[in-house]
Amino acid sequence: MIGRLNHVAIAVPDLAAAAEQYRGTLGADVGPPQDEPAHGVTVIFITLPNTKIELLHPLGDNSPIAGFLEKNPSGGIHHICYEVEDILAARDQLIAKGARILGSGEPKIGAHGKPVLFLHPKDFTGTLVELEQI
Amino acid sequence: MIGRLNHVAIAVPDLAAAAEQYRGTLGADVGPPQDEPAHGVTVIFITLPNTKIELLHPLGDNSPIAGFLEKNPSGGIHHICYEVEDILAARDQLIAKGARILGSGEPKIGAHGKPVLFLHPKDFTGTLVELEQI
Repeated sequence: MIGRLNHVAIAVPDLAAAAEQYRGTLGADVGPPQDEPAHGVTVIFITLPNTKIELLHPLGDNSPIAGFLEKNPSGGIHHICYEVEDILAARDQLIAKGARILGSGEPKIGAHGKPVLFLHPKDFTGTLVELEQI
Repeated sequence: MIGRLNHVAIAVPDLAAAAEQYRGTLGADVGPPQDEPAHGVTVIFITLPNTKIELLHPLGDNSPIAGFLEKNPSGGIHHICYEVEDILAARDQLIAKGARILGSGEPKIGAHGKPVLFLHPKDFTGTLVELEQI
């Protein structure tokens, strides 16, 4: 069912410092910050030859990553995202296998403008997994 | 400097359960468990179209991931690995930029039989980063 690893998302307390670590120290292809007010984050995309790293920083009140950064003040990997071809078919297959979908269970439009769902970390090795329809 | 994302390593408390989650529920290409006594882990490789997921479980005494699983009993992402072409050049460039290399600072032979180094999480957004020479 799952296809490519679309991205690894890392929550960071200081976006400029993290961008400089990746651009200046690791020599990666680091894009500009992009505010995503609908998702409560500012994002920087790092383009690797085979996938992306996304640096996430809270934007506005009630950011979904604020609590994570309180628990992990130095930052850390927040989630990984796998691509699927049909998100509704993927969801129904997951539910049939007993996996839990976070939120309402209906896909939302994610930061890339495509339908996404998040799966319960306890069902997947303590890891928050996002599925994105490609 | 960094190239492809070689893998995402996830430490898991129950290797068989994690393999079944990825094989049975997520429909991924999951390999057999491989003991790596020199590294204190049993590994399962999950092959995605563009990169790998590695499930890690402690093997023997003094496993380097035992402490991580004590702090994260459900499991969690342990590290991410970026490829570099020349690990000694990468190391020297990192040190010149003020980044800290874990351990002796000399590359070791990693689980794939290639030279690896680990970087200090505090220098890289709270994330343990492995560099592997390809």
